[in-house]
Parts: sequence; structure tokens; C-alpha cells
Amino acid sequence: MIPPSGLCVGLDLDRDKLPAPYRGQPDDMQRFAVDVIDAVRPYAACFKINVAFYEKYGHVGIDALYAVREHCTTSYVILDAKRGDIGNTSAAYATAGFADLRADAITVAPYMGRDSVEPFLAWEAKMVYILGLTSNPGSQDFQRLDVGGMPLYERVMRTSLTWQRSADVGFVVGATSPKELAHVRGLFPEVPFLIPGIGTQGGDAAQTLEANGNGPAVFNVSRGLLYIDDSAACIDSIAAEARRLSSLLTSR
Amino acid sequence: MIPPSGLCVGLDLDRDKLPAPYRGQPDDMQRFAVDVIDAVRPYAACFKINVAFYEKYGHVGIDALYAVREHCTTSYVILDAKRGDIGNTSAAYATAGFADLRADAITVAPYMGRDSVEPFLAWEAKMVYILGLTSNPGSQDFQRLDVGGMPLYERVMRTSLTWQRSADVGFVVGATSPKELAHVRGLFPEVPFLIPGIGTQGGDAAQTLEANGNGPAVFNVSRGLLYIDDSAACIDSIAAEARRLSSLLTSR
Repeated sequence: MIPPSGLCVGLDLDRDKLPAPYRGQPDDMQRFAVDVIDAVRPYAACFKINVAFYEKYGHVGIDALYAVREHCTTSYVILDAKRGDIGNTSAAYATAGFADLRADAITVAPYMGRDSVEPFLAWEAKMVYILGLTSNPGSQDFQRLDVGGMPLYERVMRTSLTWQRSADVGFVVGATSPKELAHVRGLFPEVPFLIPGIGTQGGDAAQTLEANGNGPAVFNVSRGLLYIDDSAACIDSIAAEARRLSSLLTSR
Repeated sequence: MIPPSGLCVGLDLDRDKLPAPYRGQPDDMQRFAVDVIDAVRPYAACFKINVAFYEKYGHVGIDALYAVREHCTTSYVILDAKRGDIGNTSAAYATAGFADLRADAITVAPYMGRDSVEPFLAWEAKMVYILGLTSNPGSQDFQRLDVGGMPLYERVMRTSLTWQRSADVGFVVGATSPKELAHVRGLFPEVPFLIPGIGTQGGDAAQTLEANGNGPAVFNVSRGLLYIDDSAACIDSIAAEARRLSSLLTSR
């Protein structure tokens, strides 16, 4: 199931960056996430939960992960996990994400190829966002290498659309270069994109929206939304910014 | 810190495949893992813990994961996680693996490039096994694509050896083709390899050892060791097979 296009609120809970009213309190991550979810729910097309920031805190973090996911209730939830392994292992990761955590979508790394991704695609009514062109500096290292007349990321995308149940394939395409995003969108007009990189990573919301054209897409904002106000009014500030971003990102 | 060369015992706990004496018992995964660890410890150069098989069971699985890691005590532990994300996220995964779980090494996926791997390398006295050429069928899809006169996997390996603290870089190199393993070993005679694929995936131990020559390497066996005997004598069988494999894999 494809999420509605618009703002994706990334729940990347960095305990060291929590606004002052939450920092150092018991259950700080979870309390902050719950308040953020409640505040931005009217403006969020979906939530993206980055597993790393929970795993980092061991048992406490895993408890928070499950609690935060529960609090998203019926909202569309993307589990940002970037998993990928041999078939039986990917099948276990898919169970962890789609069954245990009840995610609607998972991000997956493509390096190990078809049988590392298909166990995720095997789940009905779930989506799999395959890493295409990412928004980080290291995307230069391998993703843009030429493989027979096209960059590796394009080959990854084209190939993955030939796999079983590819109707559930989406791509992660970074927003750091609007020109490049427009190019990739031109290649795959109908495929759902998860577009990270707006805000802290440098992507401009309006330019990114324009570059994406009319393709189905969710635009993720994490740090650029969660950590904009360190005061007691932080949740109000986050709600206001989410409303602004949502209006900007769904204006078409 | 590099593990001693030899047999790597993969603790890939598939609950559905547990030997009959453990299957369906409370704490079945954990009890089986503890008994296996005790039985094979004299023969294992290291243990490899595949996170997926624990994550699959939610909280129960995470509890088992921590308990199993604790039971490995001072043995060398490779966390098979295949993580990789933008810098601050990879840093969180590195903390989860190296600090919380006290792993000695982690497997990492290279698709996102330098800044997705360096946060793992930043940890002193820890190792990072980067996916090079994997043992699954999907390794055909992208890893062998030609990029400027060499396959992508070779480019990944060469490039990653230029990164910060690359003395802690090892590679995952599958054992499914001895000829290919020999070729890769020839390219990187001194780099530690984690070699999966012996047993169930088709790799022959003696041929694999020969193909690897004198390079530092651990040879992982998981399913081909854990699920060979469904009887009450299963732990004895596993210990005997581990001794045989260990002797075969450290005969030079």
C-alpha cells in the first residue's frame, strides 16, 4: 500500500538533542516521540522510524521503539532499517518489521541483489523502499559509478523493477540535488519515492517538490523538524513547522 | 582486533529448525544457543551472531540476543548485522553493536559509501567486515557489474581500503566458488576475510581453505552445524562436527 504523498515526519530520536524539557527525564525519548506524534499527526502523510536511534539504547531503546510505533496507531509507518541479507535472513528481518512492528513499509539495501530483497516484497500490502540514490556524501563512492552506460543507482532501480511483486517497490532518492531528483523522477514517473535530505542535509522543500513533479512521494524531515526549539514551547513550534512544511509539500 | 583464523560458528537461531529436545520449550532459542556455545567453544575461533534471527521475535528475541552474547563471554564475537546508513545513523548502529552488545566486529553494507562505514571504523580495537562478494545468488545482480574494468565488488574493496582507519577493514567474501575466492584472496593477501557459505550454501570446507591460501580468515558455518541432528544427542553431534571442521579449517 502506497502512502499518501506529502510530509514524512522522521522520528530519529537522538537523546542528546532532545529539547530541554525532555532531556534527561525518564522515558525521555518515548515521551518526546509521543508528544511529537500527537502534535504533527494532522500534517503528516506518514511517519518514518529510524531503528538505529532506538537500537542504540539496548533494551530501553527497543521498548521505546515498540511504544512509539504503537502510538502511531493507524498512521502509515515506514521503518527505516536499510536491511538486506541472504534470503532466509531477509525473511527474518521482514517478519521483524512487518509482523512484530507492524510497519507499512521498510527501507532495504540492494547490494546483495534479488534474493535479499524479494523476501520483503513477498509481504502483501506492504511497501519496500530500495536504496537508489541516497542523500549522503558517500553516495558518490559507488552509486554513481558507470555500469554499462548508466550509473549504478539507475541499474539498481531498473533491475529491481523486474523482480517479483515489483508493484510494491519504491525508491529512496535523496533531495540534496533537485536536478538529479528531477532526472531520476523522469526515468521512473510512477514509482513511489521516499525523499530524505530536506532540512539539515541541505535540501530545500519547494525546490524538491518541484523537482519531483507529480510523482508519488513522501518527503522526509527529521532533524529539521524535531530539534528546532529547545524551549517549553517546542511541541507548538514543531506543530507549526510541520503544518508549514505539509502545506508546502502538498501544494500541487 | 583481528580474530584468530579458523572456524566461525554462526548462531543463526531459527526457532522452527531447533533440534527436537529444544523445539517449543520456553526460552528454546536461548537454551539451545547456550548449549551450543559451551559445546563448541574449544573449536571455535569466533562466534557470529545473526541479528535478524533474534529481531524476528521482538522483545523475546532481543532478550535472547543479549543473553547469547553474554554467554560468549571472552570469545571473539562478530555481529552479523549488515548495517549502513548516513553518518549519524551509522554512528548509532555502531554504538548498538560495539558498546551495548560488546561485539568485536560488525558486518556492514557498503552501498551508501564512505560516511556510512567510517562511523564503525572509528571504534578502536574493533573490526568492520564490509560486504564484498557475497555467497547468495543475488550477488550476480550488482556485485559483479563491470565498473571501469573491474567488478563492483573489487571497486568496493579497493575504495574501502582508502578510508580512515582501514587497518580495521575486513571483507565478507563468499565461499560458493573456490576459484573466485582464490582470485579475491590474490588481490588482497593480507586483509581479514569473513567467509560464509560453507555447508548448506554449497561451499566445501577443504576447497575453501585451499582457495583462501594463507590469508587471515574465519570460515562461517551456521545451518550446516546447528541443525545436523534432531535427537537428544544433538549437542554431542554438533561438538563432534565443530571439532572436525575446526581441524579441517586450521590444518595449515
